[in-house]
Amino acid sequence: MAVTLRMLLAVCFGLFVLPQGRGQTPAVSPSGIDAALSEDIVIGSRVLAEFGVLDGFGHVSARSSTNPAHFLLSRSLAPALVTADDIMEFDLDGNAVDARGRSLFLERFIHSEIYRARPDVMSVVHTHSPGVIPFGVSRVPMQAMFHNAAFLAAGAPVWDNRKDFGETDMLVRDPSRGKSLAQMLGDRPVVLMRGHGDVTVGPSVKMAVFRAYYTDVNAKLQSQAIALGGDINYLTPGEGAKADAINFAVIDRIWNLWKMRIAPNLAK
Amino acid sequence: MAVTLRMLLAVCFGLFVLPQGRGQTPAVSPSGIDAALSEDIVIGSRVLAEFGVLDGFGHVSARSSTNPAHFLLSRSLAPALVTADDIMEFDLDGNAVDARGRSLFLERFIHSEIYRARPDVMSVVHTHSPGVIPFGVSRVPMQAMFHNAAFLAAGAPVWDNRKDFGETDMLVRDPSRGKSLAQMLGDRPVVLMRGHGDVTVGPSVKMAVFRAYYTDVNAKLQSQAIALGGDINYLTPGEGAKADAINFAVIDRIWNLWKMRIAPNLAK
Amino acid sequence: MAVTLRMLLAVCFGLFVLPQGRGQTPAVSPSGIDAALSEDIVIGSRVLAEFGVLDGFGHVSARSSTNPAHFLLSRSLAPALVTADDIMEFDLDGNAVDARGRSLFLERFIHSEIYRARPDVMSVVHTHSPGVIPFGVSRVPMQAMFHNAAFLAAGAPVWDNRKDFGETDMLVRDPSRGKSLAQMLGDRPVVLMRGHGDVTVGPSVKMAVFRAYYTDVNAKLQSQAIALGGDINYLTPGEGAKADAINFAVIDRIWNLWKMRIAPNLAK
Amino acid sequence: MAVTLRMLLAVCFGLFVLPQGRGQTPAVSPSGIDAALSEDIVIGSRVLAEFGVLDGFGHVSARSSTNPAHFLLSRSLAPALVTADDIMEFDLDGNAVDARGRSLFLERFIHSEIYRARPDVMSVVHTHSPGVIPFGVSRVPMQAMFHNAAFLAAGAPVWDNRKDFGETDMLVRDPSRGKSLAQMLGDRPVVLMRGHGDVTVGPSVKMAVFRAYYTDVNAKLQSQAIALGGDINYLTPGEGAKADAINFAVIDRIWNLWKMRIAPNLAK
Repeated sequence: MAVTLRMLLAVCFGLFVLPQGRGQTPAVSPSGIDAALSEDIVIGSRVLAEFGVLDGFGHVSARSSTNPAHFLLSRSLAPALVTADDIMEFDLDGNAVDARGRSLFLERFIHSEIYRARPDVMSVVHTHSPGVIPFGVSRVPMQAMFHNAAFLAAGAPVWDNRKDFGETDMLVRDPSRGKSLAQMLGDRPVVLMRGHGDVTVGPSVKMAVFRAYYTDVNAKLQSQAIALGGDINYLTPGEGAKADAINFAVIDRIWNLWKMRIAPNLAK
Repeated sequence: MAVTLRMLLAVCFGLFVLPQGRGQTPAVSPSGIDAALSEDIVIGSRVLAEFGVLDGFGHVSARSSTNPAHFLLSRSLAPALVTADDIMEFDLDGNAVDARGRSLFLERFIHSEIYRARPDVMSVVHTHSPGVIPFGVSRVPMQAMFHNAAFLAAGAPVWDNRKDFGETDMLVRDPSRGKSLAQMLGDRPVVLMRGHGDVTVGPSVKMAVFRAYYTDVNAKLQSQAIALGGDINYLTPGEGAKADAINFAVIDRIWNLWKMRIAPNLAK
Repeated sequence: MAVTLRMLLAVCFGLFVLPQGRGQTPAVSPSGIDAALSEDIVIGSRVLAEFGVLDGFGHVSARSSTNPAHFLLSRSLAPALVTADDIMEFDLDGNAVDARGRSLFLERFIHSEIYRARPDVMSVVHTHSPGVIPFGVSRVPMQAMFHNAAFLAAGAPVWDNRKDFGETDMLVRDPSRGKSLAQMLGDRPVVLMRGHGDVTVGPSVKMAVFRAYYTDVNAKLQSQAIALGGDINYLTPGEGAKADAINFAVIDRIWNLWKMRIAPNLAK
Repeated sequence: MAVTLRMLLAVCFGLFVLPQGRGQTPAVSPSGIDAALSEDIVIGSRVLAEFGVLDGFGHVSARSSTNPAHFLLSRSLAPALVTADDIMEFDLDGNAVDARGRSLFLERFIHSEIYRARPDVMSVVHTHSPGVIPFGVSRVPMQAMFHNAAFLAAGAPVWDNRKDFGETDMLVRDPSRGKSLAQMLGDRPVVLMRGHGDVTVGPSVKMAVFRAYYTDVNAKLQSQAIALGGDINYLTPGEGAKADAINFAVIDRIWNLWKMRIAPNLAK
């Protein structure tokens, strides 16, 4: 087989073109899964892994574009390794539509119960975000440090599973724990989980991933500000609401950057 | 097409030669934009992204070399992706000279109003520098920790948009906010923006980028020194003025390093 | 020699397939060493180096699968450079079975004495984990911050060699110091070493490496939580025991990720 | 030109063989400079840049192997870019033996005056080590956190140029400042420079570089231990002396690792 310069470029930089597939009606794979949504889940999973917000654990899901009572989530797999072929479809009881023997995330009930409780939510991200974990075991509440994390000005409550369920293995491994977590989330974009991590939600995969990323960034910035000592001039709720509207307007600027960064890994 | 070793080297390391184009009169692209200035903007944008001073947002500009009432700034794009083709020309009211439908940064008024207020400034850099954001919401003033950040010995004021404009979306999205920010900057090289980031300026793109980088480094070093506890022996204003003169003398040493680091990405 | 696309892929990404060799009876190399165990030691050493838990020093060992009174450990070499060919066999007095002039780790007695004292332990990892070292010289005990580090809820004692041995070179360089360290470890998964590092143990190389990694992560998270100020809501011992059982169930998810990340380096 | 697999490997991984050139009598380049010493300076410079101990500034030198009143230091260049061709020879007054128009480091007097004052020193490293700078402006003395940084148990004094020279540009730009710094160093391995960085020395390039690296590591670990609160159980001077002897015994283990890591960059 002859080697062309174009092939070498592709090989060495891994700059494989991502499937676009966004038409008026969603393109679907042979398994019937929306290709564009799958691609967003893959990119989001890998971006958060690239930035260390996810390590070997955690997951990104999306509500189905064709059936609002279903959602898409990968089989049990490290997020950095997720491909479109790994995306499965689930109902709101956390049952796989077509499991074909694939292993499932124990904590898929985080997703199912939030989709059930929040019709506005189109995507859910669960991470063990290293910046955020300290706030989940502290009495210091997270607050919005800057405009990219403006959504935190609405408050980020901490869910402590021990309150309702006693001493557990910390996992959201059944619908009742998922429901309890969804109740603590309420109508907000973020909920922290004591001794575990956090969950962010949004009206699109892009926004839920954006919030997972900036929740981690904000946590680190807030820790640094606290360490300086003295009062901190956080964003007010009013500023937060206005600034968050801008985040929706500029999301594609950072999403396109992330997509470029992650493209080589997608080719693996 | 035959593959040569030289081609492979270029492909695998991406060591493409940057256009030099610095003659007695500025080389200009077909669009009439100074090629050397564009190159500095591209390098500066990508260097600051490489070091995490910039993420998907923020921007580097330069005053036009042919018309001091105009400046160069990229279209709305993540700084890590900026190429010479993305550089546009603006007037001091923030109007694009030849927009051709390209989308513009909402915050171009940071640049236009500083160029208006400060004839000595030839470059402006706006970042969401993660080291600096904690100081923008704290009452602890930034001070110069070491000679490379000597320019901070002149003081780095904090601009709080809420003072003049109430609860906003935090952005410098019109001339009046740009003017207010420029007033707080005064004749200094750096101004912090509460809940947002900072702006550095300089007599060249290199110096403005150098200052953006070392403002971030200094912020992190100062945070660490404060965490040790006790008094801190900062650079005095007299030391700062003398040491900053040296930074001008050695700027090419680090700029050439940065240019080498960033060259592979420029080829993408 | 003709260049194929497959070869280029292998060359540029280094995605060489690892030898699997896990059958009903352990595959052995010409030297008689279990190939699968050697591979786990190599992967574990390189993963911990990749994450900065190990730098040029530290080591990963495994109890022999054929002789429980022997263990496998590399010759004296930086962990990032260890290959299967470097793995040697030792008895519980720390003597090499077939040294062939290779240089040995001074601290192999960490391993020999823990294997002697703890029949349940199948793997021992010694690191200079940068997150953990501060806890080894502090009076603040490490505690479990989240479920992945649930094994720390059983407590992580600090071994101070000065107590029994006076002012030494800090190394566990003979059986008596190894025995003293093993006594402080007791039946726990982790022991810290003052002014030196820590040791983690487990029922497999995977689990001992997992614990070394998450001990480092937990130390950094705990430091951050302490810096926030106020009480910390650590995992309780009951939660820790339950959550640690889950870690055993999900270990392959992160181990497979690590193996993928480390594969290119293995090819070097 | 035909492309072989070996060539591709060399191109893609940059695994070019370093010149060895270590015979009984030092191999010398056409300029008469000891090739092995030059190689150590190049490796040391690039390793410290790789780890962020050096950025665009700072330098590594070695006393000449043939003339103890001369030393080797690169021309003024970012350490990450230094090659053997950039190494120059200087006398103890800081004069270049054969300048050939090359630009010189302003601070070469750090090196000349320490070589003059300390016949035992064969290598000097000057960095703006980010871990260390906070200790240079603090009243908290650096102390040895662990055995790899055992040399710090002898104490690390802080040199404040303002004491003897008033408000300066902070640089060691003449013999008198170099002499003052050398006096503060005394017979120790490390001296901190207020508002600037630090200097480490050793009986070989390897040991001076090792000390520069672990001084930075130790500073970060000590900062973290202090942030935990309470007393810290540092290495005693007696432990430090014993443990430092081990560092000499194991230096090649980490040096060989560093050489491997840095080899690809050397080929650039």
